[in-house]
Amino acid sequence: MAEFSVIGERLPRVDAREKVTGEAKYAADYSLPNMLWCKLLRSPYPHARILSIDTSKAERLPGVKAVVTAKDFGGWTWGWMPATRDEPPLAVDKVHYMAEAVAGVAAIDEDTAEEACQLIRVDYEELPGVFEPEEAMKESTPRVHDYAKNNISVEYHWNFGDVEKAFAESYIVREDRFRTSRATHGYLEPPAILAYYDPTGYITVWASKQSPYFHYRHLAACFKLPLSKIRVIQPFIGGGFGGTKNDSLAGDFCAVLLSKITGKPVKYVESMEEELVTSRRRHSMIVYSKMGAKKDGTLTAIHHQVVADGGGYTAVGPLSLYLAGFATTLPYRLPNFKYDAYRVFTNNPIGAAMRGHGITHTRFAAEIQMGMIAEELGIDPVEVRMRNAIDNPKPGTIYETINKVTLKTCGLKEAIQKVTEDPIWRDRNKTPRKEGDISWGVGLSGTSYLGGARQMGHQACAAIVRVCEDGTVNLITGATDCGQGSDTVLCMIAAEELGIKLEDVNIKRVDTAYTPVDPGSYGSRVTILAGQATQKAAREAKRQLLEAAAKTWQVKSEDVEIREKKVFITSDPERSMPFDKLARIACYSGTGAVILGTGYSGYGLEPLDLTNGIGNGGTSYSFTAQSARVGVDMETGKITVTDFTIASDCGRLLSPIQAEGQIEGASVQGMGQTIYEDFIMDRGKTLNPTLLDYKMPHSTDIPNIKLIDIVTNDPDGPFGAKETSEGSIVSTPPAVVSAIHDATGIWFKELPITPEKVIKALKEKL
Amino acid sequence: MAEFSVIGERLPRVDAREKVTGEAKYAADYSLPNMLWCKLLRSPYPHARILSIDTSKAERLPGVKAVVTAKDFGGWTWGWMPATRDEPPLAVDKVHYMAEAVAGVAAIDEDTAEEACQLIRVDYEELPGVFEPEEAMKESTPRVHDYAKNNISVEYHWNFGDVEKAFAESYIVREDRFRTSRATHGYLEPPAILAYYDPTGYITVWASKQSPYFHYRHLAACFKLPLSKIRVIQPFIGGGFGGTKNDSLAGDFCAVLLSKITGKPVKYVESMEEELVTSRRRHSMIVYSKMGAKKDGTLTAIHHQVVADGGGYTAVGPLSLYLAGFATTLPYRLPNFKYDAYRVFTNNPIGAAMRGHGITHTRFAAEIQMGMIAEELGIDPVEVRMRNAIDNPKPGTIYETINKVTLKTCGLKEAIQKVTEDPIWRDRNKTPRKEGDISWGVGLSGTSYLGGARQMGHQACAAIVRVCEDGTVNLITGATDCGQGSDTVLCMIAAEELGIKLEDVNIKRVDTAYTPVDPGSYGSRVTILAGQATQKAAREAKRQLLEAAAKTWQVKSEDVEIREKKVFITSDPERSMPFDKLARIACYSGTGAVILGTGYSGYGLEPLDLTNGIGNGGTSYSFTAQSARVGVDMETGKITVTDFTIASDCGRLLSPIQAEGQIEGASVQGMGQTIYEDFIMDRGKTLNPTLLDYKMPHSTDIPNIKLIDIVTNDPDGPFGAKETSEGSIVSTPPAVVSAIHDATGIWFKELPITPEKVIKALKEKL
Repeated sequence: MAEFSVIGERLPRVDAREKVTGEAKYAADYSLPNMLWCKLLRSPYPHARILSIDTSKAERLPGVKAVVTAKDFGGWTWGWMPATRDEPPLAVDKVHYMAEAVAGVAAIDEDTAEEACQLIRVDYEELPGVFEPEEAMKESTPRVHDYAKNNISVEYHWNFGDVEKAFAESYIVREDRFRTSRATHGYLEPPAILAYYDPTGYITVWASKQSPYFHYRHLAACFKLPLSKIRVIQPFIGGGFGGTKNDSLAGDFCAVLLSKITGKPVKYVESMEEELVTSRRRHSMIVYSKMGAKKDGTLTAIHHQVVADGGGYTAVGPLSLYLAGFATTLPYRLPNFKYDAYRVFTNNPIGAAMRGHGITHTRFAAEIQMGMIAEELGIDPVEVRMRNAIDNPKPGTIYETINKVTLKTCGLKEAIQKVTEDPIWRDRNKTPRKEGDISWGVGLSGTSYLGGARQMGHQACAAIVRVCEDGTVNLITGATDCGQGSDTVLCMIAAEELGIKLEDVNIKRVDTAYTPVDPGSYGSRVTILAGQATQKAAREAKRQLLEAAAKTWQVKSEDVEIREKKVFITSDPERSMPFDKLARIACYSGTGAVILGTGYSGYGLEPLDLTNGIGNGGTSYSFTAQSARVGVDMETGKITVTDFTIASDCGRLLSPIQAEGQIEGASVQGMGQTIYEDFIMDRGKTLNPTLLDYKMPHSTDIPNIKLIDIVTNDPDGPFGAKETSEGSIVSTPPAVVSAIHDATGIWFKELPITPEKVIKALKEKL
Repeated sequence: MAEFSVIGERLPRVDAREKVTGEAKYAADYSLPNMLWCKLLRSPYPHARILSIDTSKAERLPGVKAVVTAKDFGGWTWGWMPATRDEPPLAVDKVHYMAEAVAGVAAIDEDTAEEACQLIRVDYEELPGVFEPEEAMKESTPRVHDYAKNNISVEYHWNFGDVEKAFAESYIVREDRFRTSRATHGYLEPPAILAYYDPTGYITVWASKQSPYFHYRHLAACFKLPLSKIRVIQPFIGGGFGGTKNDSLAGDFCAVLLSKITGKPVKYVESMEEELVTSRRRHSMIVYSKMGAKKDGTLTAIHHQVVADGGGYTAVGPLSLYLAGFATTLPYRLPNFKYDAYRVFTNNPIGAAMRGHGITHTRFAAEIQMGMIAEELGIDPVEVRMRNAIDNPKPGTIYETINKVTLKTCGLKEAIQKVTEDPIWRDRNKTPRKEGDISWGVGLSGTSYLGGARQMGHQACAAIVRVCEDGTVNLITGATDCGQGSDTVLCMIAAEELGIKLEDVNIKRVDTAYTPVDPGSYGSRVTILAGQATQKAAREAKRQLLEAAAKTWQVKSEDVEIREKKVFITSDPERSMPFDKLARIACYSGTGAVILGTGYSGYGLEPLDLTNGIGNGGTSYSFTAQSARVGVDMETGKITVTDFTIASDCGRLLSPIQAEGQIEGASVQGMGQTIYEDFIMDRGKTLNPTLLDYKMPHSTDIPNIKLIDIVTNDPDGPFGAKETSEGSIVSTPPAVVSAIHDATGIWFKELPITPEKVIKALKEKL
């Protein structure tokens, strides 16, 4: 009998049919009788003082029911940590970035609300703007926030080992400046909310949130209501990736406040242009990387100095900066590491979280710089990686980094080996290096990402498994499937644990009035932590069922097992009954049991020291090796990516179809950010605020992608699983950049590598 | 410090504001985009063969989307027990009562659906009808169902002790025939459903159900879907009382099937006339009561022979007949008891459950007959009751009836004493007996009712208490508040147990996708059984919180207590913190706990023998003594009830306001059924099918009601609670009938006692 009957099977998603048929309802699809529409007035300046706001003309427009401005929120602000709550729902006194929301209108329809916004008169005094983060840190630069000296929003200074000594003793030391782009998440569903503040003091919203319990806390705090009176009902989510849907936004707060004032439901749907212009985006980070190595390529030390463009407010900036630092001690052994990082306020839109959060920036820098060093030392790219890669700890042992990040499994060496045995890498010199104007190159990368992200505070997941008397199961969890397919994975975990089939397990969307609190969908945490919780809840329900079986058969419950919907005595499998019969016996017993299992994740984990970068940011760590093959048109600078081979150590793949989809999707997104994607800014203004101008990969741009599974069995993941997908958005940029170097001889250090930059660099090289 | 801080307080209902402001949404208030309306075609005959149905003309009517008849349900039938599943959603081959549904239509609006119904051509062959239950039992009478010999639907024959011997040895034996009326529940909200069968094979309904999990099982069975794919969302319920809302009805099944066929949501709202004509109603029962007593009035034996008019189908008939029997050994000691009961099929509408279910009939008969015997023996009505009343068992002991019903508490004697000390009884002979045409009388009764009804099978309640990090709580339960206020009581239980305030606990309506399975709201079970579950769930959450407090203070958790939102060390109350701080500590601990407590009711109860009437139908038993004062107009026969004094042993009153409302409401409903309410039938046709013609008490009819609490502390109820309200619908009829006897000298044995009956009896007496 196979080890598993559900886990590892190529099963379709539990929501496939709803999504394919258009049955699935998203936030903007919800309506209520007597509903009003909300629109926002946004600032035309990136930095300006608000002298006065006159809403009287807007209020008099027929069909307008209410207008709100900052004063209606009574000075309330929010943010990721208590110390960084600097963002008001509507701008107070001053706007800090272009298109920041200044006023909100509720009217009987969208057009009237829009028209009313145009009737609001705001007198601004324009202020000098701050747009370049390194410039922003100068004493002479105006402040974005009066309290923030040198415009510093967050800073960290960590020092592990002795980098200065290590550099002094190194055979080679390099210093380079890297810069990453301002990328956006590019989900297809715009943020939307339908809000109802009922007169009894209870808020119900249908909102497109990938972490609905963040939003629940924000609403409770903003409206000074108990958490138990905030109901966030989660529709289907059309992608999140850590963007605006992982936070709350002006339209959310305005819709709820306008509902409170008018007594009617209020709907707000952000236009795609509003979303692109104002949404939290990936930080653009400048990474000064100093790296030392021995003659044989063994790394001796890294010193990263980071300056991140934070934009107008803090948001999750402290986490971004932490993530950009703590994982630099992975995936290669690193005995000395120093990190000096600044997140800086500017009058640009806000920098925040995005898939591959934080690690994309510094791993890109370090991986490329290691390639440069290997090149200088004449060492093969594979050799330098294999020499430095962390070994897979023997079962039961732990590898600990200098900043106390601990690994129980690491498949990196195996991944590098498998990728380099693959024809793309193996035969890279057998194929023509040049065809017409096209110069071909192949690159390699090795990376790591955390899974099961942990923070201080309320970080655990819970699950409730309810066994119905017909043997089918309802899985009740606060975990969010924002499109990645985690609902399917959680149902598979419950089915495997209970010995039933995937179709026997049903899950519905998060509803904070009923589902257990859950941090949300970010930091690759759902499979690992909500998965742990689900596994434990299913185990607890199974324990109750096995007791009922044991009582029926007069045996011990540890002698009973369930596999593929058959309940049997382990030593005498002929004594058996179908699962649904056992469910009926258990539910209809004279004792009147209700079969409910509950489970929790993450008990017993030590707290994390965010400020000092010590400890585990994740529960476990994935490892990825990737090759990329590119063709560079030496005349036009156009880069075509033709092949990826990605070997991922994601622990055990629970749902291969979905893991593959995640890895492929993330690598394509990573490719976009390497060669296409960037918001072009002009003094705080986004010049390419549409998906026509902000270029993302089309389906025709997708390379051949070959995936190789490196199966480790991580003891902290359900059935040995680790994270999937954030690894390959980290591994893709250095693989592609290395391939471009292989094709052109040029090491590009700023993303994205557009044709213009290629041409310019080729000209400079000549 | 008082024993309790929430329990026993006069706190307003948790849903008071929603209901008073009209915020509360009932099933008929729900709509969905593209929704269709369902209407039913009903039979004009009480008993007829269906020769053919032609729906083609209806189908061609513009706006009609689908028409269904019995064949579309493939022969599926439902019922209360597996052996009694005799009712199809739409009549198959034959109609068994007038206005039975024959076809269902879905159309774009109500009028079109109604018009289409009129276009359906049904050819009937009218059959001879059966309308009188005693007549129905004769061999020569046609059968309502071919398989049911003598038209017997259910029968029970129980024999405890030796009644024949006891009658032979009795000083006095009486035999009387009593009859109860066909009363209806009279809730203000008509049955309604909004149904959506989505193409993925998942049913969602918003339905006015007092036991939503019954409906969930019916839908799963009818549509052959797993239970985990049936989502019954419960809106507010405008009264249930055990009527149609405790079952499923033709409109429910048709709406779901029509949604399946059309792919659109379908809404069905029953008109009040349809409801009154077709709904399950209280059985009209004929009770032949034979009672023996000693010379001093001590009861020796009762033999009840019951014939109940069951109407066209079985429904919950087996339960009605069981309840009419098992509790006759309460509230007076009874050494010998025989019960021969028949529920009989007729072509009348279906008899089923109603507040005071079953017991109202036989207790009315026995209580009046005991009064007759006392009168014959010249014994005072108080004396005969005190002589026979069961004593309150000493704490830790049990009183067991001859049919193994067990009591741990019984406040009957105290209740009789308190009621008879009250001026209405005490001064009954001091007030004028006659004023003009009005003759005054005062009557007395003593009764019992079960609480926490138990059945075989899936009978337990569960609750989940979720503590939010701000110290407020979500209570998640499948228990139903159908208007009685049980949500408030459950929230009070959770608040008391956790040491917080009522306003800190929030509850939302049942949603079978999230809430634990629960049998529903019937048999006075919510406070007792869902209350037990809630108390245990709160205790479990509290245990987790106390552990966190103990860890913080480095003490043992048993040394920490919580009262009125203050957490403190019992031996050193100065060491304390607010509850919300503890919640934050517990939820934000490094271990990442999610504070979820689960609890279940009723573990360890022995199974019940329904067929033989042995064992406990309830978890515990309430006791009520009641006096009533009436004035009878000796010229017109009009009866005016002026005063009730009701002493109830409901265990401990958890929420006095609501208990009082329940007792008062039930006594007024009982009064209506004693002197006003009855469906007048003519060969299967209901002649008074509107609330204008079917007379219920108006607010102006309500007497002065004085309530006296008899507090016993029942060990099986949460905080000592027993049932409330079903007791006083049982005690009111015999109290009023005794008062009428006191005023007129006539013992009426058939309900209701209308002016016509009074005049007729007075004439006969002369």
